[in-house]
Amino acid sequence: MEFKQRTVFCGTLRKSDVGTEVTLNGWVQKRRDLGGVIFVDLRDRTGLVQVVLNPEFNASAHEIGDKVRTEYVISVKGKVVERDAETVNPNMLTGEIEVQVDEIEIINAAKTPPFFIEDGVEVDEQVRLKYRYLDLRRPEMYKTLQMRHKVTKIIRDYLDSREFLEVETPILTKSTPEGARDYLVPSRVSPGEFFALPQSPQLFKQLLMVAGYERYFQIARCFRDEDLRADRQPEFTQVDIETSFLNMEELLSMMEGMMKLVCKEVLGVEVETPFQRLTYADAMNRYGSDKPDLRFGMELVDIGDIAENCGFQVFSSVIKKGNQVKGINVKGCAHYSRKDVDELMKFAARYGAKGLAWMAFKDDEIKGPIAKFFSEEEVSQIKDRMQVEDNDLILFVADKAKVVADSLGALRLKFGKELGLIDESKFAFAWVVDFPLLEWDEDAKRYVALHHPFTRPRPEDVELFDSEPGQIRAQAYDMVLNGYEIGGGSMRIYKRDVQEKMFKALGFSQEEAQEQFGFLLDAFEYGTPPHGGMAFGLDRIVMILANRTSLRDTIAFPKTASARDIMTDAPGTVDTKQLEELSIRVSMPKKETK
Amino acid sequence: MEFKQRTVFCGTLRKSDVGTEVTLNGWVQKRRDLGGVIFVDLRDRTGLVQVVLNPEFNASAHEIGDKVRTEYVISVKGKVVERDAETVNPNMLTGEIEVQVDEIEIINAAKTPPFFIEDGVEVDEQVRLKYRYLDLRRPEMYKTLQMRHKVTKIIRDYLDSREFLEVETPILTKSTPEGARDYLVPSRVSPGEFFALPQSPQLFKQLLMVAGYERYFQIARCFRDEDLRADRQPEFTQVDIETSFLNMEELLSMMEGMMKLVCKEVLGVEVETPFQRLTYADAMNRYGSDKPDLRFGMELVDIGDIAENCGFQVFSSVIKKGNQVKGINVKGCAHYSRKDVDELMKFAARYGAKGLAWMAFKDDEIKGPIAKFFSEEEVSQIKDRMQVEDNDLILFVADKAKVVADSLGALRLKFGKELGLIDESKFAFAWVVDFPLLEWDEDAKRYVALHHPFTRPRPEDVELFDSEPGQIRAQAYDMVLNGYEIGGGSMRIYKRDVQEKMFKALGFSQEEAQEQFGFLLDAFEYGTPPHGGMAFGLDRIVMILANRTSLRDTIAFPKTASARDIMTDAPGTVDTKQLEELSIRVSMPKKETK
Repeated sequence: MEFKQRTVFCGTLRKSDVGTEVTLNGWVQKRRDLGGVIFVDLRDRTGLVQVVLNPEFNASAHEIGDKVRTEYVISVKGKVVERDAETVNPNMLTGEIEVQVDEIEIINAAKTPPFFIEDGVEVDEQVRLKYRYLDLRRPEMYKTLQMRHKVTKIIRDYLDSREFLEVETPILTKSTPEGARDYLVPSRVSPGEFFALPQSPQLFKQLLMVAGYERYFQIARCFRDEDLRADRQPEFTQVDIETSFLNMEELLSMMEGMMKLVCKEVLGVEVETPFQRLTYADAMNRYGSDKPDLRFGMELVDIGDIAENCGFQVFSSVIKKGNQVKGINVKGCAHYSRKDVDELMKFAARYGAKGLAWMAFKDDEIKGPIAKFFSEEEVSQIKDRMQVEDNDLILFVADKAKVVADSLGALRLKFGKELGLIDESKFAFAWVVDFPLLEWDEDAKRYVALHHPFTRPRPEDVELFDSEPGQIRAQAYDMVLNGYEIGGGSMRIYKRDVQEKMFKALGFSQEEAQEQFGFLLDAFEYGTPPHGGMAFGLDRIVMILANRTSLRDTIAFPKTASARDIMTDAPGTVDTKQLEELSIRVSMPKKETK
Repeated sequence: MEFKQRTVFCGTLRKSDVGTEVTLNGWVQKRRDLGGVIFVDLRDRTGLVQVVLNPEFNASAHEIGDKVRTEYVISVKGKVVERDAETVNPNMLTGEIEVQVDEIEIINAAKTPPFFIEDGVEVDEQVRLKYRYLDLRRPEMYKTLQMRHKVTKIIRDYLDSREFLEVETPILTKSTPEGARDYLVPSRVSPGEFFALPQSPQLFKQLLMVAGYERYFQIARCFRDEDLRADRQPEFTQVDIETSFLNMEELLSMMEGMMKLVCKEVLGVEVETPFQRLTYADAMNRYGSDKPDLRFGMELVDIGDIAENCGFQVFSSVIKKGNQVKGINVKGCAHYSRKDVDELMKFAARYGAKGLAWMAFKDDEIKGPIAKFFSEEEVSQIKDRMQVEDNDLILFVADKAKVVADSLGALRLKFGKELGLIDESKFAFAWVVDFPLLEWDEDAKRYVALHHPFTRPRPEDVELFDSEPGQIRAQAYDMVLNGYEIGGGSMRIYKRDVQEKMFKALGFSQEEAQEQFGFLLDAFEYGTPPHGGMAFGLDRIVMILANRTSLRDTIAFPKTASARDIMTDAPGTVDTKQLEELSIRVSMPKKETK
């Protein structure tokens, strides 16, 4: 070999190693010269250790050590020695020892990196992404990707031990008319035709059930060409699962067991099962969200019955129109100023609220402009229902159900964070169930599927297809963790008559259904087992478990919000010849044409 | 639940279960009516079991059973009973018992499938692919995909236990000028620009080494838009591996351990390690191939020294031009007719051979038109060197080294198969090493990299850069199994001076190098560790282990030779609107324009 290979990893050395000869390979984190002695913090993926080049101990090693700079790759050989009491570093796992170097070799030099390789570094993310290979050196990035590896390993082992098969499904597949925008891939062999990258392996996993595979999973790359928000990536990873002959309870319990194991193995956290369950209606009513953060209370309280006949015209008229008046109790915040409340109003307005009514209870006094419209009994009813104590501030929104839910739900989350109501050590899992099967689309004047047209209704609701399709509850479920939807799925329709009712409710003719879902419907003719499954967002799960705030921190080589990889500078232009072979031409948008 | 759920799997029932009540869910493999009693072979992914509907036992169950047809999905409840001695089926694992049905439910009906769901079915592959969900029901398909799952599980566990991290790298990446043809993905956000699907994660895995990740792997999807041969797929799966600070021996030994474990766990086969090693030169000389099938002998024998001065003008002139004369000994085939040999000549001609000289040894007689040109001593030398016995046929090719290797190598494989010389139970692993670093490109009049421009030369050969670049041996290696290359890789250059020598040998200026490999060269400036790795073809490994002849049988949803998925009918046309959003237009090839 062209250099002396390590005998041990830097971060693993301890007091018990004192006296041993070791060789280390790694990167120079820091180099200091103190009174002619050179101290190097040497880093590998396990951590740091201090190595010392003392000219009195070895002059030639010291001479080489003098040339060493930050991020050089070096090999050192020496003896592990105990540090003097006063130089022990209690903040380093290896802080009780150091390595007295006898031989040193520069394996590779390095230019000064554009930012320090350390946690919590304050660097523009564009720079971090351009030099991603340096950003990834930072211990918190390594630990996050290590955790990601561990999470996928645990999931794979769990599913394997339950007889699931991991099956790879195509990346070059067919464009589907429903759903988000597809990424397209022009075909060279079939000019004018295109593959699409999959938004999920949904069709293929259902076909594997038709094929009798019974238990399928895949850690699958999926693609959506959407305008990116902070927490979206054009390519993302899904833990994709489908099973046959299981009922919903069996599937949900299996999935709970999986997440319980992940939390235990990765974080040492014991999560209780079965998870709490909320119906969709409950979640919206109580938390104003279909992915409620259950780590704290501050539930939305309906005071519609009290508001209906109260003297405050705004409230009573809203109720008469069939809308809602609900409030939240912001404990101990009666001291909020008029200006504070104005800010909250602006915040609520972003979610569509036209106003924010409030009452503050302080020293048996009620502040707030609407107080005077309520009788003593009405106030007492409100206080009772909302568990108001002295110093509490209550906020009301009176509007359509959606606006009430969105604005109060958002306020609730805002207070949860800002008032420190959230127990950050908690992992509050829940299932949200009983989603409506169909949603009325006011523009199209027809029902559309809330999940997809193969979602199975609850058997007792099937009869509602003819009377009240909007009331049918789906056998669909989302797994929620700390206010994020981390997974979702459904049992699928496998009975022909139910499928026909569904298509009819969606206003599809037999021909239209065939056109849109052709080969899947064909497949369903050949003996389809009862089946259902779900999909988890792996990037998001890792983000939550690793306590990161961006999905980009969970992906080794992510894209920016404008869907670019600024390290490799992708996408880029290509040769005309390449396009010719694919029978396509670039046709720039009109605005930019000269 | 809407049907009675299974208590046990079909294929697992045995004599020891006799007397138990079971519920089974599965597909009807076969239904026979024998004297009013209905016999159904019921199938799930574990196998088959016979269930019996006897009207005397339960009339209403028999009535429903009468409606059941092939591939119906049913649920049956009944008692496991022993079969009569004369009806025991020794070919079925469940052949000693049957289930006497008390309750039956049709979960789903099925149309008659276009082919029987059974192994070895003789159906046009187009039909199998169109109805892939039915094809996948065949036990041999299920077993192959189950094996694929197992192989990847073993590989993942092996690498995980050796501290490798699985890291996902992008699918939407940058088009690279070198290598095969890229699949392109137009960017919507950056009009006129394109992503490319990766041909391998090569650049990213090297960057992960620069990032200090030390041990990376990924079961990675890769893409090549090449004209497909029978054993190619546009998307394929690679076990991609890279390590830092290891030397080549350590890496190879780790990889051997991995394949040894796969063979043991999947097939129960003990493979000996370390694997045999052949230099590239040896492999070409002795087997005419850089991926020799070592399950049998019939090595190529060089008789150039004998041929040089022999009376057969064709041979001696070839040698005088610096080319080769080599032969193989086809044991016991001296009886081949003139016609047989003509056929062999045609075969050899496909590999560029202009002729095939032969001698047959039978009863101390030498047949063949060239025999007369050789002296008795020369014949005796040949016989000696080629270990000729009575009844042997020897075949010679005299030509350039490449033609000799290609044609005799192909003949050797042909005989190996046709004469049954190959021990099919053998797993003959080997490493082919010492590949040349550089190859002379006669067209471009320059050296090109045999692997890629970052392949590390053997340290003792570095000095040859200035004198004989073509003689430099690379630290590159292929893993070969039974005549297939199943993996390959190299140690990479990490020293700047070596990299510069390499670029110089390839005729690249500093600027050209920067243009082609920009960000990777930039990354290399920031402290690159010594690193190297390899990549295995997962599809091919599964094909060999499962004893299948087509890669398509190892992939759940493969493409045809014209890169189509005929089940989903991908690729397909898309809406003009989609293309507009991507700023591209279809521009059909000239020939097809009206």
